[in-house]
Amino acid sequence: MSTDHGILAPAWAATGAAELVGDHALLTAMLDTEVALAEAQAELGVIPASAAEAIRAAADPAHLDPAALAEGVRETANPVVGFVSRLGQLTAAVDPAAAEYVHRGSTSQDILDTALMLLCAAAFDRVTRDLLACAESLAGQVRRHRDTPMAGRTLTQHAVPVTFGLKAATWLHLVLDAVERVRRARAALPVSLGGAAGTLAAYQEYAGGDVDGTLRLPDLVAARLGLAPQTLPWHGIRTPLADVASALLVTTGALGKFAEDVLVLSRTEIGEVTEERAPGRGASSAMPQKHNPVYATLVATAARQLPPVAVVLFQSMAVPDERSSGGWHAEWQPLRDALRITAGAAANAARLAGVLHVSPEAMAANLRLTRGAIVSERVNAVLAPTLGKAAAKRLLAAASAEAERTGADLAAVLGSEVDVPAGLLDPAAYTGLSGPLADRAVARFEEVFKESA
Amino acid sequence: MSTDHGILAPAWAATGAAELVGDHALLTAMLDTEVALAEAQAELGVIPASAAEAIRAAADPAHLDPAALAEGVRETANPVVGFVSRLGQLTAAVDPAAAEYVHRGSTSQDILDTALMLLCAAAFDRVTRDLLACAESLAGQVRRHRDTPMAGRTLTQHAVPVTFGLKAATWLHLVLDAVERVRRARAALPVSLGGAAGTLAAYQEYAGGDVDGTLRLPDLVAARLGLAPQTLPWHGIRTPLADVASALLVTTGALGKFAEDVLVLSRTEIGEVTEERAPGRGASSAMPQKHNPVYATLVATAARQLPPVAVVLFQSMAVPDERSSGGWHAEWQPLRDALRITAGAAANAARLAGVLHVSPEAMAANLRLTRGAIVSERVNAVLAPTLGKAAAKRLLAAASAEAERTGADLAAVLGSEVDVPAGLLDPAAYTGLSGPLADRAVARFEEVFKESA
Amino acid sequence: MSTDHGILAPAWAATGAAELVGDHALLTAMLDTEVALAEAQAELGVIPASAAEAIRAAADPAHLDPAALAEGVRETANPVVGFVSRLGQLTAAVDPAAAEYVHRGSTSQDILDTALMLLCAAAFDRVTRDLLACAESLAGQVRRHRDTPMAGRTLTQHAVPVTFGLKAATWLHLVLDAVERVRRARAALPVSLGGAAGTLAAYQEYAGGDVDGTLRLPDLVAARLGLAPQTLPWHGIRTPLADVASALLVTTGALGKFAEDVLVLSRTEIGEVTEERAPGRGASSAMPQKHNPVYATLVATAARQLPPVAVVLFQSMAVPDERSSGGWHAEWQPLRDALRITAGAAANAARLAGVLHVSPEAMAANLRLTRGAIVSERVNAVLAPTLGKAAAKRLLAAASAEAERTGADLAAVLGSEVDVPAGLLDPAAYTGLSGPLADRAVARFEEVFKESA
Amino acid sequence: MSTDHGILAPAWAATGAAELVGDHALLTAMLDTEVALAEAQAELGVIPASAAEAIRAAADPAHLDPAALAEGVRETANPVVGFVSRLGQLTAAVDPAAAEYVHRGSTSQDILDTALMLLCAAAFDRVTRDLLACAESLAGQVRRHRDTPMAGRTLTQHAVPVTFGLKAATWLHLVLDAVERVRRARAALPVSLGGAAGTLAAYQEYAGGDVDGTLRLPDLVAARLGLAPQTLPWHGIRTPLADVASALLVTTGALGKFAEDVLVLSRTEIGEVTEERAPGRGASSAMPQKHNPVYATLVATAARQLPPVAVVLFQSMAVPDERSSGGWHAEWQPLRDALRITAGAAANAARLAGVLHVSPEAMAANLRLTRGAIVSERVNAVLAPTLGKAAAKRLLAAASAEAERTGADLAAVLGSEVDVPAGLLDPAAYTGLSGPLADRAVARFEEVFKESA
Repeated sequence: MSTDHGILAPAWAATGAAELVGDHALLTAMLDTEVALAEAQAELGVIPASAAEAIRAAADPAHLDPAALAEGVRETANPVVGFVSRLGQLTAAVDPAAAEYVHRGSTSQDILDTALMLLCAAAFDRVTRDLLACAESLAGQVRRHRDTPMAGRTLTQHAVPVTFGLKAATWLHLVLDAVERVRRARAALPVSLGGAAGTLAAYQEYAGGDVDGTLRLPDLVAARLGLAPQTLPWHGIRTPLADVASALLVTTGALGKFAEDVLVLSRTEIGEVTEERAPGRGASSAMPQKHNPVYATLVATAARQLPPVAVVLFQSMAVPDERSSGGWHAEWQPLRDALRITAGAAANAARLAGVLHVSPEAMAANLRLTRGAIVSERVNAVLAPTLGKAAAKRLLAAASAEAERTGADLAAVLGSEVDVPAGLLDPAAYTGLSGPLADRAVARFEEVFKESA
Repeated sequence: MSTDHGILAPAWAATGAAELVGDHALLTAMLDTEVALAEAQAELGVIPASAAEAIRAAADPAHLDPAALAEGVRETANPVVGFVSRLGQLTAAVDPAAAEYVHRGSTSQDILDTALMLLCAAAFDRVTRDLLACAESLAGQVRRHRDTPMAGRTLTQHAVPVTFGLKAATWLHLVLDAVERVRRARAALPVSLGGAAGTLAAYQEYAGGDVDGTLRLPDLVAARLGLAPQTLPWHGIRTPLADVASALLVTTGALGKFAEDVLVLSRTEIGEVTEERAPGRGASSAMPQKHNPVYATLVATAARQLPPVAVVLFQSMAVPDERSSGGWHAEWQPLRDALRITAGAAANAARLAGVLHVSPEAMAANLRLTRGAIVSERVNAVLAPTLGKAAAKRLLAAASAEAERTGADLAAVLGSEVDVPAGLLDPAAYTGLSGPLADRAVARFEEVFKESA
Repeated sequence: MSTDHGILAPAWAATGAAELVGDHALLTAMLDTEVALAEAQAELGVIPASAAEAIRAAADPAHLDPAALAEGVRETANPVVGFVSRLGQLTAAVDPAAAEYVHRGSTSQDILDTALMLLCAAAFDRVTRDLLACAESLAGQVRRHRDTPMAGRTLTQHAVPVTFGLKAATWLHLVLDAVERVRRARAALPVSLGGAAGTLAAYQEYAGGDVDGTLRLPDLVAARLGLAPQTLPWHGIRTPLADVASALLVTTGALGKFAEDVLVLSRTEIGEVTEERAPGRGASSAMPQKHNPVYATLVATAARQLPPVAVVLFQSMAVPDERSSGGWHAEWQPLRDALRITAGAAANAARLAGVLHVSPEAMAANLRLTRGAIVSERVNAVLAPTLGKAAAKRLLAAASAEAERTGADLAAVLGSEVDVPAGLLDPAAYTGLSGPLADRAVARFEEVFKESA
Repeated sequence: MSTDHGILAPAWAATGAAELVGDHALLTAMLDTEVALAEAQAELGVIPASAAEAIRAAADPAHLDPAALAEGVRETANPVVGFVSRLGQLTAAVDPAAAEYVHRGSTSQDILDTALMLLCAAAFDRVTRDLLACAESLAGQVRRHRDTPMAGRTLTQHAVPVTFGLKAATWLHLVLDAVERVRRARAALPVSLGGAAGTLAAYQEYAGGDVDGTLRLPDLVAARLGLAPQTLPWHGIRTPLADVASALLVTTGALGKFAEDVLVLSRTEIGEVTEERAPGRGASSAMPQKHNPVYATLVATAARQLPPVAVVLFQSMAVPDERSSGGWHAEWQPLRDALRITAGAAANAARLAGVLHVSPEAMAANLRLTRGAIVSERVNAVLAPTLGKAAAKRLLAAASAEAERTGADLAAVLGSEVDVPAGLLDPAAYTGLSGPLADRAVARFEEVFKESA
């Protein structure tokens, strides 16, 4: 038997993400779809209520054998053919007459698409929960460190000061961007019902030609499953999967930014943040002293893996026919992967935010590293009106270079040339609007959080 | 000089798409950004009104040398350093005093991000226009062929009948999905203003410490440029680019589906649609008889190229620091590429929809190819209640195989075994709800179209 | 428990590919690596022979719990820390003294990299076997149909005639390209041994400072495992994975071309090839008549999925440090995926080649579809010397268009204008060098096949 | 006019890379191909020698208008139709009779594929030259710093000591990997000659049916152009492009690793390497003190952009027909992009290696940062035999944590518990086999370099 417990998948190992989209979850969702279809048809009077009841009674995932269904995938290129046949047997065991009504008028793609939307729903719900937990921790950091100065870094070099509050606000803002996109995508997840080629013809045939009832059928199924209605059958209109992919990409991108920043800030030489120590966490097989930034690494892994995986979902939009050969089939496993990678990332990011230890002392020490050069932009702004912009910039570039070469303070180097007001070179006094901007992120968090209450 | 006229780029050659994002357009947008910044600062009293006027007067793209600016990119890793220096010279030529106020408090990324958003805006506007033109042609096809039956095809094989109206409705629906996503993305394109590390510190410094005015500055610039305001400076929050990428991906995916269908339907053996003949169009360098589906090919090319290009924009979300080394820089050319590929696709798709010739005769002929097997699903539905589902399916599978082997009609083969009502095997009578579903797409088109009026 | 039997993975479901790289295979390979390391160290006198024996005795994958190891991945970002700890316990149970010698001087990446190379080796061996089986079937088709004429198609339109022998030779040539690249990559798979940061320092420390012995250690381990030696430790030199990715990409690309051609040729309207019927194969859940090209679909699915997955392996080359955070970790699951997708594709392609039924009759019928226009290139070549190239091409373009419009034969249309030699418009007489070119592919097959004997 | 001077393309701006594959280079290569074809046909007696001479005389890229040819791309989906027509006019102006012999028997793909191979050849030659220059600088660094100790870093944390010589050897080894793959790919670049559908039929027709001569024709053209012969026409066998992509991917991956390491090592807090200062290099538009690692940034940008671009080339292998609609067309611009990105990366990496300033002082200072913990692996190795492996590791983990918390030296903390030999905690004494391994890389460099002499 082939199993994949995630020992090669740091992006989602042991987060529960794989279970959300594993075989058991999928088969449960496929059964839920068949049951909802039967019950909706019963509601419309197309099949007997007793048949729908029997199908519901038979729909127990414990009676399905995923290995056998995988064998069937190799014969029919999808798992639904074998699944329907097995569900027919199980239903017949409950009520022989009912077996006739299983999957009535339906087609493989109806069941699989709808089941995958249910998996997306479950994953999105979990992701939203974990994103909000992450956001809550980050909002706490923003509040605590609203005014904690630290070096801003651009192109790897100290640029001008920022505050850790603004840095964490950046992460928080990204997480909220993700929450909004995941929520919107969650609400839009549609049922998929089209029949063999998207005309609903067999559903109509079994409904004795009833047009209105057949047009209502997808809505009834959607309502039972907690999915959105469809406008047209979407076997060949794959926008819903593209929208799912977009939401997942923003999520792992947002969390990946958070993780990449943590990785930089926790470098041995920087040491501004660390993941709190806990027994075993971040240990190495070789080096006893090692305390690796493990959750940041897990999240960064997810952010690296998702974009290529998700791209398949966009590519599968552009395929021919009412149902393509290969394009449709290529969506399933990448969708599963994308969901478990993202759900893993959200779970790990929530933990990362929860164990993030911040060192204002290290931040202060690093701010002093360039001995004033980190505020040369400000000195420039002060000197430019007098010296002219270009001359001021030349002066400061030369002075910074000399300070770096000689190890002197920028103030000392400058002092011999121009008059610099006291305090002008204090990095902590040049954090600009970091505070009010950080407040905006917190306010947005409170808004977004409220909606989930 | 290195030029790229698109002779290797069928995705956008000669569509005008490249001009939308070419060097001239970019430099114009960068100038517009500097001018809007100066004018907003003048409005706030941070710089003299005369300086803003001089900057506006100097801001003529004709005076910028893109080749020289490209040289600068190799020295500073971005084109803004050299650009600002040049704009300073040009402004000094207008008003020496004004040169001091160019780019005041600003940073390269503010100018480049904002300018790129302006390019996105222009491209989105063009794309929307072309998508609507495409949709209008398709809506015409849906109306004309609402009830024209044709073979539905799944996994390359005839499945059940559909109508060409429903097929075109599928394309129309996709195009409308794209319109909605492009419009939403267009409306959300934000100004980018953060200063060196996203704190607005230098803007504030030059504004004499004014908090409220500095917080308003980005909004004023946004209003002047027709962009959305920002909540936080987004140098390190790349959601706006991810949202742009998502909208572009849905657009080329949608148009790619249309193109791939046309490519299949115009195969020599199928011949259900063709691109109208015009002198030179679709000609071959070797074969005189050739009449290639050229617009469909151009659009299919775009749909193949976009997803990998766009993936860079998602990957660049997850990079460290207030501005990353390499992550930020890696966004620019793929964004340009993604915009011109998509704008090219929209232009070519509008043409494709406009020249699409439909052959109901070929559709009717192809529908008869399987001599009835294409409606075996319906026969199955009719026979199942009597024979039982499994038996009916076995019977029809066997009968279809025999009909295929012997070249007989399915009706004839079946007739010897069961009683089949007259007309049951008429493909044109089994198009299900194709008509009402097609109507939905047209109704949606009218709704969407109205918003653009 | 999270399992993934492949029911969403038509690319590899039920092909045995997943088992090659599943948790059991990985853990076995990790154990093999630890055993080979211990035995090599014993050979060098660094650890007692009895310790190596005990480690070998303890190294039973049945005693490892993948779910528990996955838990560890979340704590340490890799499965080796927990694995080594468990192997120590197992060894201690065999010989308490030996447990001290487990993983001596080693680091997680040494074990995981080497184990992954062993998985690559196993997958490459399976892929080579299946590619050769596929090639053998294809070579048979080339020989049988060396001179069977059929329509050549470019940009979806009939172009000029080819032979099915040449078409199959194209597929065969591609498969042989894949065999050569997989063999080369297989032979180059290196052992990975570097210690904590690639200096071999701890191996040397435990070897009492022995330089020569420590430099030989990786070679000894490589020899025991059937891998190639390394020049430098390659924790930060990921070319081996890029080379693996390249070989896999050529393989699925090659097989994907074969599959995409089969999908086109088996379209209902074309019908030139089919997958032989067998009970259940290619069945639909809805349509009794359906006989889908299932193996071609499975292979096409693999070819669509691989490129994005493999791209991660190239991206992970460009990461910092002696071992990166996230870059290294992002390789594992995509490598596993890439191997199982490719191994699945090879298995399914071998089947596809084995069940491919060819219809020379359909090919002949399709060749006649354009009533001569398919040889207009030839007529052009004959007329050009007399009429001039441009005039000849104009004439033939007009005549082809008229023939298409009126349904007349090209010969008839032309006959009224120019004198066309009899037989000139016979498609079967214009297959060029299809035969000799097909022979070349067969000759190459025989060469390549010989090397595997 | 749409131009693209690279102001958004730091990956290749101002490196000369764009010119290698620009419109002028392409058109020159297309002309070279047509001339070689004519001359080879003249050699075989298929066309008059005078015609070949006239074609050569007419083949001046100055007479071609790329903008007009781009217009044609939109009508025929490739630039060759218009190009051939124009070349016919130009030839007619030289010798009216000769115009008949232009492009005789040929097809668009023959000309375009062959011309693109010529562009690959030129780019590969340039890349090889720049890689060797880069390697030479790096070999110098390896020799100079063979024994300069520095911190090895894994998962962002100090791990064990390495030497800068070994670090540079890693980069050198990667660059040599790239050289070997580029050379191999360069040597294999094949001519492409197949005629309309890969049968060489029209070439044969114009050769009066001559089989042997027509089979030799591609070899003659290849010899004239400095390309490798083809086995089969490869319009539908895209392995050559996949091989090109693989070589390019290894190149940017290799250089990207170099760049990413430089970016980390030049962080303000680390400061172990810098790019030598030069006027304007690495300047910022805002901050006077800024000295950005600009070449490393340019190379890192290239490494981020290439993998997604290159993926299109692998995807285009799996397309149907003798020449696909969209698959073939999608290759061109990504190939151009991939070549210019890689050539830009090689040029910038050569510069980066040339201006890399190394600070052994900073390396020494950083090595001391953990006050001994960086050699805890070694202490562990020394203590394990006495204390037992597990106890030693526990002891050292606790001691390292205490040292970190208290700011004490590890030696001091340990000294109170165990007896640690003097010198054991000297990082410079625990660089393992860094020296001999670095020597291997230099030896390999000398070997590879010799081949280019």
